Amino acid sequence: MPLNITEKLIKAHLVSGEMIPGKEIGLKIDQTLTQDATGTMVMLELEAMGVERAQTEASAQYVDHNIIQVDNKNADDHLFLQSATRRFGLYYSRPGNGVSHPVHMQRLAKPGKTLLGSDSHTCANGCMGMLAMGAGGMDVALAIAGEPIYIKMPKVWGIKLSGEMPDWVSAKDIIFELLRRHDVKGGVGKVIEYYGPGLDQLSAMDRHVIANMGAELGATGTVFPSDGEIRRFLTEQGREEDWVELNADRGASYDIEEEINLSELEPLIAKPSSPGNVVPVSEVAGTPIYQSYVGSSANPGYRDFAVAAEIVKGKMVASGVSFDINPTSRQMLTDLVKEGHIASLLQAGARLHQAGCNGCIGMGQAPATGRNSLRTTPRNFPGRSGTQEDSVFLCSPETAAASALTGEITDPRTLDIPYPQIKEPENPTVDTSLLDEPLPYEEAKKIKLFKGPNIASIPPMDALPDELELPILLKMGDNISTDEILAGGARVLPYRSNLPEISKFAFEIIDKTYYARGMESVSTGGHAIVGGFNYGQGSSREHAALAPRFLGLRVALVKDFARIHWQNLVNFGVLPLIFANEKDYDQLEQGDILQLNDLRNKVQQGNEFTINVKGKSLSIQVSHALSERQVEVMLKGGLINLVKERLKRDQTSL
Amino acid sequence: MPLNITEKLIKAHLVSGEMIPGKEIGLKIDQTLTQDATGTMVMLELEAMGVERAQTEASAQYVDHNIIQVDNKNADDHLFLQSATRRFGLYYSRPGNGVSHPVHMQRLAKPGKTLLGSDSHTCANGCMGMLAMGAGGMDVALAIAGEPIYIKMPKVWGIKLSGEMPDWVSAKDIIFELLRRHDVKGGVGKVIEYYGPGLDQLSAMDRHVIANMGAELGATGTVFPSDGEIRRFLTEQGREEDWVELNADRGASYDIEEEINLSELEPLIAKPSSPGNVVPVSEVAGTPIYQSYVGSSANPGYRDFAVAAEIVKGKMVASGVSFDINPTSRQMLTDLVKEGHIASLLQAGARLHQAGCNGCIGMGQAPATGRNSLRTTPRNFPGRSGTQEDSVFLCSPETAAASALTGEITDPRTLDIPYPQIKEPENPTVDTSLLDEPLPYEEAKKIKLFKGPNIASIPPMDALPDELELPILLKMGDNISTDEILAGGARVLPYRSNLPEISKFAFEIIDKTYYARGMESVSTGGHAIVGGFNYGQGSSREHAALAPRFLGLRVALVKDFARIHWQNLVNFGVLPLIFANEKDYDQLEQGDILQLNDLRNKVQQGNEFTINVKGKSLSIQVSHALSERQVEVMLKGGLINLVKERLKRDQTSL
Repeated sequence: MPLNITEKLIKAHLVSGEMIPGKEIGLKIDQTLTQDATGTMVMLELEAMGVERAQTEASAQYVDHNIIQVDNKNADDHLFLQSATRRFGLYYSRPGNGVSHPVHMQRLAKPGKTLLGSDSHTCANGCMGMLAMGAGGMDVALAIAGEPIYIKMPKVWGIKLSGEMPDWVSAKDIIFELLRRHDVKGGVGKVIEYYGPGLDQLSAMDRHVIANMGAELGATGTVFPSDGEIRRFLTEQGREEDWVELNADRGASYDIEEEINLSELEPLIAKPSSPGNVVPVSEVAGTPIYQSYVGSSANPGYRDFAVAAEIVKGKMVASGVSFDINPTSRQMLTDLVKEGHIASLLQAGARLHQAGCNGCIGMGQAPATGRNSLRTTPRNFPGRSGTQEDSVFLCSPETAAASALTGEITDPRTLDIPYPQIKEPENPTVDTSLLDEPLPYEEAKKIKLFKGPNIASIPPMDALPDELELPILLKMGDNISTDEILAGGARVLPYRSNLPEISKFAFEIIDKTYYARGMESVSTGGHAIVGGFNYGQGSSREHAALAPRFLGLRVALVKDFARIHWQNLVNFGVLPLIFANEKDYDQLEQGDILQLNDLRNKVQQGNEFTINVKGKSLSIQVSHALSERQVEVMLKGGLINLVKERLKRDQTSL
Repeated sequence: MPLNITEKLIKAHLVSGEMIPGKEIGLKIDQTLTQDATGTMVMLELEAMGVERAQTEASAQYVDHNIIQVDNKNADDHLFLQSATRRFGLYYSRPGNGVSHPVHMQRLAKPGKTLLGSDSHTCANGCMGMLAMGAGGMDVALAIAGEPIYIKMPKVWGIKLSGEMPDWVSAKDIIFELLRRHDVKGGVGKVIEYYGPGLDQLSAMDRHVIANMGAELGATGTVFPSDGEIRRFLTEQGREEDWVELNADRGASYDIEEEINLSELEPLIAKPSSPGNVVPVSEVAGTPIYQSYVGSSANPGYRDFAVAAEIVKGKMVASGVSFDINPTSRQMLTDLVKEGHIASLLQAGARLHQAGCNGCIGMGQAPATGRNSLRTTPRNFPGRSGTQEDSVFLCSPETAAASALTGEITDPRTLDIPYPQIKEPENPTVDTSLLDEPLPYEEAKKIKLFKGPNIASIPPMDALPDELELPILLKMGDNISTDEILAGGARVLPYRSNLPEISKFAFEIIDKTYYARGMESVSTGGHAIVGGFNYGQGSSREHAALAPRFLGLRVALVKDFARIHWQNLVNFGVLPLIFANEKDYDQLEQGDILQLNDLRNKVQQGNEFTINVKGKSLSIQVSHALSERQVEVMLKGGLINLVKERLKRDQTSL
């Protein structure tokens, strides 16, 4: 049977399950990527599991999120990450080297391989003919330890690109077109695979733009072929030997078929505050702007900056516009400097920032309250810019540069200048100087983890007890989000490497006394919480499971769970239970004590059992949805314990 | 009588007093400079006083401190400052344009003029043959309103520069030599005036380096002649017409005479954690470093970056060293890009940051805990880097670059390469694009101040009442610093434009209940505090007087005051009283109620009077040290009220 590229990638990495859409499959992971905001916890998980050395072909730790350093915490985390990468045999990309996704593409990405990363835009490297997926930190830690990733077999959504891109239209407009058609849930459960004659107009970095924002469609991944352009790119990067050809078989089909005629595209823009809120730029032209921002993994390429530079060259940005330039890698910045583009940008009034994620993730460059910010970044969710009442539009570099000049949203076609033709530099810089190679194992095993005052190891967690008496410390309503369970933001984020400290913020928005009561519960066997529908919706942060677990949470009993948080609870050994009869929710009060007897047996023997409530003649029917694999995880008290035991066994048997 | 330059500058601006060292003199101010961290309050003070338009020859507001923008506050402040400069007729230097001191020097500084700035390094512009001085925000607000500044007539400290600077020694080492000899109090009450044949080796920007760090000696100011080099500099800046010659008269003398033989200098370094802790670099060579940092107003010149670039060109910084480059103005950055120096720095592994103060004032680039940071900045006080347990060394760009290569503190002479000869660019860029000119008055008067949610006007303050019953809300010991009265740091600073909000932090370190009790006291006529010796030592922040005043503080009764805080209390209408008999301090308790009767008369009639304590047969003899001018300020309830009335009167009489 002829296969498409996605199917080929999956087939080549399948370790369990069947390739039937919706069924669980296990995939071998060749490469991993972690960034600093999630990576500190991944490294602590490796430590807690007793991992000796990364089992992947290449695992890289990037420092690109927390590079502002207003106090010791970020800098201490960088030193910890450096020591951990040296200890476990990872690449370490130093602060200032650039954003993980383009740097990984330049230095490590290989066609035909799988990449798992603890960053939702990991999918960007699908541009290289890889199956590249974002995941939670614990999943990436397991992949580093050599474990497969378990996902549901996706549908493959083939997008045929035909026609010719008009002037002033670029890669960003292609992904906007898809978001315009299908909105932010359109890709859920699917891998998007691009093919067709239109591909020849897209450089490897253009494909990065498109693959990156597959995340905004909710897709599992985005796949491009590995063709002559990828060979050219790898050759330019001094890595021609890493190229293999990867194309769909002749006659291959897709679960879903769609076409984009590039000739019909025009400059598009996503209005506040969703990447799916796409309209033609012309529809909002004239809207005054406060900021124009070029950079981020959604427009990381040399040409993205160069085209903006050519548009503003010899002109001046409008008074009052903050024109922020955020280079995405030092390697590219060096070429942009050499070719005169940075000079053009500066002379036009740009603020040039260090290479990194910066304002894209709210680390600097926050706009003024209520003022319009125009950005080439991938996301404009409310408040993501750092300003609560923000108003962020997403666009191409062409639109951002044109609008910087006029001070209002401007369709770049109306500038009435020739469309700049960008020539890539003849011999582009290859700069590996801030990317430290993994140490040989003999050296690595001697390295001690460096832990500054803000870094705390993950404490040991016990196995699931057989008998539990758990007071209900919180009874909550429907739609509790992980933001309410554990807030994000500049106040909380610096403690992401410090579980005891970050736990102080757990459920703080709902009940400030939870932390103290939780801590107290630890010595008496822990506690439970009760919730309604859609418990744990929102961000995938694993701290939302880990922090309550640290404070003694053993059972979450709710009407139903949001998928990722449910997975995180399982991973960290918190038993997720669902009311068999929703009305029982009303019978329970905060303070009630749940009695769970013969629990280990019950969890193993079936998916339903009964819980008594102490001092009330009330018994409640509950169920869990754990697979056999997950029951094992639960009994051990979480994945860390499970893997730890397995690794110990493997080492003993050597 | 032949005059030195300092005396000429003072004589030309004297509006009151006699030029006898130690006596109060009033000086006309020609130019002012404010930065964003202090400027928001200055603009609010102009508003509160009812100032119509700046009365100076040139007043400029720079945005260089708070340019990271992690939430709306900084960006909102920038918009407020922009609107205020438009309203009051000031220059506005937009975020990203650079550090106030070098930008002011390039664009506005004029030989023969006086400059007052709400930044302690305002003295840097003394390099241009100006009398340039740092002051509190209220003093600068008054100068903008056309009022003189009152200072004590300084002694003039003549420093003769002779000999020839050896290779690898630069301007920074000259000011280090003075700090080595005289430490951080050596310049108090003095203006430092440089002269002699050695001057010819110092460019205008080299002189800026030396004048800037006069602040670290505690000097009132630093003065250089306006000679051919200043003419060259102004010509290069397109402002030759602003040049006037300014030299000491033949036969002029100095109150203190000293000589530095440049031939005898070697590379010097200030060890943690004082700029006065100076030793030869060779003495600490070999100390491992975590960070090497080039930039700040203490090494702002083109050559400072270019020499670092030439040293690292074609080489690579040591693994693990964060090599941070902080350009000081966009204009200079453009030239450094054009001439290839930025490319050299990047290729050597530099992290390039936006033009501004950045890490120099703890806004980013904080080092890891306990690791050594080597910086070309002017100060290394404990914690200033943003990291509490920091270890900061100060040095020249030559030493910083050499050490970045080796990863340890390195005397650059030991690099064994020729000393790079830096040629200034032939036609240096003149870039005024981010410096907005003052609006004509007809336009300016229509401008409304833009106030984002974080900006609050200064509430009206009442005149000194005649009868007061004041409970003592705090009784404190000796040496209470302004940091204890009102903390600094990233937690508190964002509220510098919001008096009601920042007041919540008043005395928080000493007594968390003060804020609530203070607020309560407002409705019953206010309160008093009692302190010991050296009350209000430390930083000059005016919020330490303004916030307690907002919370009802009317009288501070102590054993003695630190000078600047005393001045700030007077400026904001808090009566500063001293125990005539120190032993009375022991008689008073927190909660006692001070009765002040016929107060206005008493304050006017003499410097000593008596206070009764309610319900105790205790009367306490107190004194104030107010001048006649200050008594008037106090009766009005502070300078804002005084100036407001005066301006109203002037306008009515028109």
